[in-house]
Amino acid sequence: MKISVERSALLKAVSQAQSVVERRNTIPILANVLIEAEGNDVSFRATDLDIEVVDKAPAQVERPGATTVSATTLHEIVRKLPDGALVSLTDDGTSGRLTVEAGRSTFSLATLPKEDFPVMATSEYQSNFSAPAPMLRRLFDKSKFAISTEETRYYLNGVYMHVSDGEGGKVLRCVATDGHRLARIDADLPDGAADMPGVIVPRKTVAELRKLLEDDDMQIAVSVSETKVRFATPDITLTSKVIDGTFPDYTRVIPQGNTRKLEVDATEFAKAVDRVATVSSERSRAVKLSLDEDKLVLSVNAPDSGAAEEELAVAYSDERLEIGFNAKYLLEIAGQVDRENAVFMFNSAGDPTLMREGNDQSAVYVVMPMRV
Amino acid sequence: MKISVERSALLKAVSQAQSVVERRNTIPILANVLIEAEGNDVSFRATDLDIEVVDKAPAQVERPGATTVSATTLHEIVRKLPDGALVSLTDDGTSGRLTVEAGRSTFSLATLPKEDFPVMATSEYQSNFSAPAPMLRRLFDKSKFAISTEETRYYLNGVYMHVSDGEGGKVLRCVATDGHRLARIDADLPDGAADMPGVIVPRKTVAELRKLLEDDDMQIAVSVSETKVRFATPDITLTSKVIDGTFPDYTRVIPQGNTRKLEVDATEFAKAVDRVATVSSERSRAVKLSLDEDKLVLSVNAPDSGAAEEELAVAYSDERLEIGFNAKYLLEIAGQVDRENAVFMFNSAGDPTLMREGNDQSAVYVVMPMRV
Repeated sequence: MKISVERSALLKAVSQAQSVVERRNTIPILANVLIEAEGNDVSFRATDLDIEVVDKAPAQVERPGATTVSATTLHEIVRKLPDGALVSLTDDGTSGRLTVEAGRSTFSLATLPKEDFPVMATSEYQSNFSAPAPMLRRLFDKSKFAISTEETRYYLNGVYMHVSDGEGGKVLRCVATDGHRLARIDADLPDGAADMPGVIVPRKTVAELRKLLEDDDMQIAVSVSETKVRFATPDITLTSKVIDGTFPDYTRVIPQGNTRKLEVDATEFAKAVDRVATVSSERSRAVKLSLDEDKLVLSVNAPDSGAAEEELAVAYSDERLEIGFNAKYLLEIAGQVDRENAVFMFNSAGDPTLMREGNDQSAVYVVMPMRV
Repeated sequence: MKISVERSALLKAVSQAQSVVERRNTIPILANVLIEAEGNDVSFRATDLDIEVVDKAPAQVERPGATTVSATTLHEIVRKLPDGALVSLTDDGTSGRLTVEAGRSTFSLATLPKEDFPVMATSEYQSNFSAPAPMLRRLFDKSKFAISTEETRYYLNGVYMHVSDGEGGKVLRCVATDGHRLARIDADLPDGAADMPGVIVPRKTVAELRKLLEDDDMQIAVSVSETKVRFATPDITLTSKVIDGTFPDYTRVIPQGNTRKLEVDATEFAKAVDRVATVSSERSRAVKLSLDEDKLVLSVNAPDSGAAEEELAVAYSDERLEIGFNAKYLLEIAGQVDRENAVFMFNSAGDPTLMREGNDQSAVYVVMPMRV
């Protein structure tokens, strides 16, 4: 292999690839990135056996070929090279070394045989469709905070992406929950997605996917099977196993009969929750909401360290209500509101509470109360 | 006590105080800040028993008094209050609570009796002088990287500030070393400092002091005794015990007879060192410098992972020399150079090397070589 690549294109490709590589590996080859040069491209492939990413960059290929080197070392080197440099990668196939040259710098990196690299098996995908990057970004950004971190409930360690019935017909829906809170986000169903099987996209895949979605004008090619999901741009292909489990029936958790409506400026609300929670040093800080005619009092009582109270002007016209929540959950949910006021729908102090942005039904959050 | 303080003045005062407080305290009162209100000021005093900081803010004092509350909780609250708010602090002296009010927020914080707060004993200082902030900033900034972290050599865990003989007469000098590298920084001796005893200023004090030195126009009042050092601005007084030990005779470490001179662009040099060191994953990465007529080759050889080499155009006219250094030490020393080229003075591959900025003798660095 002998190729030349422009430094910034190389950095972009290697960055995406190396971020999939796990820092601690018992299998040496998994720390490496597979470099394959052919035609007018070089591709960088990295995997942790669950996720595989392939990232292409345009290259001048003088001699095609393939090899593997440490993903982090290659990334560090390219990152430190001066911007605008032309980088050449040369592997004679016999020395067990890849030579990286740029300007007056020469690096020689230990390689492992390309044959040892575990390339993910190709699959048949039942459903292939295209979705705009901003749509996928919204679906995952607004749901991922609710992903569970409890490994025993592995089927909650991801975002459940599936087709469902929304208000105006079929929707593409993402749901995540950890049992304490839940996020349900809908988007218009893309053409060709109707027969998509529901899949649980793992947390790490959601994080890696996020990097493909920065460009507002990008169309993402999505492919879904029972066991795998693939997201692709012209340059990057991210393939991931999905979580092998059944996502619980979340619809039962979403309260239908909550009638007590509170409307509040989400930013002011979040700031006030953050302030009153300061006096408690406990990990799960409980904030009490006391509701009365157009008035909300947030309060925290931590016997050891102190107490705090703050009043907010709100829209509320139902009967008096006192209800407690984990401060962190309230903050995270309020942080999702980006366009309108936060609308909370309460039932009683013991029942799950619903939150949405204004009257928008396409993003709905549920949070369980806490005894205060 | 009953006072009102403008939020930004309060935040500034509390920030400085709380940063002295250690996060883990076995003595509860040490987690607290002593608030004292009298006249037109409120002062915040915090200590870890070695360092004490007192920070004043202008206040409307309705009822003078004093109490103590958790430094971190107070700081967090004030930080989260809206900018421009007027904050009132009220303590009735009997409830064991300090009430903090701002706008529609009310906080009630647990207090501990002011009598329990360990106020540092006042001392007689042998020497009192005034020094401009930029001068002290330079003295400590350029020396602190070389402070040792080995607790067994406790007398190296700080910066040795003392009066010495410089090229053009007496100087105020700061020296730090960890046995592998050394920094010796000189400044003009301020009036009244001639009889100052040499003191070892602890690492944490150096870090806290740094916050007093941001303002270029500030004059810092410095007071020094055999056991304590004090730095004061009109608002902030930082008092610290000094390290009770004898700083070693560093003059013997500074090579006098090094004649082989290398002159190099410090930024280019540092970038190249950083790049070649990438291939080695060891903690103490050795970089080899190979010198020849106006040419410097930096190289690293890590048998497991690879090798790297980079050539730099330099000014060097002595005989060929190969010498190795810890990459981290070279990077840190090169990072001190801010005005001119770095000038290295070598003797042999086994002898300490001297570095300075151009021909400036007021900042001199020594670094021990490594076998490569």
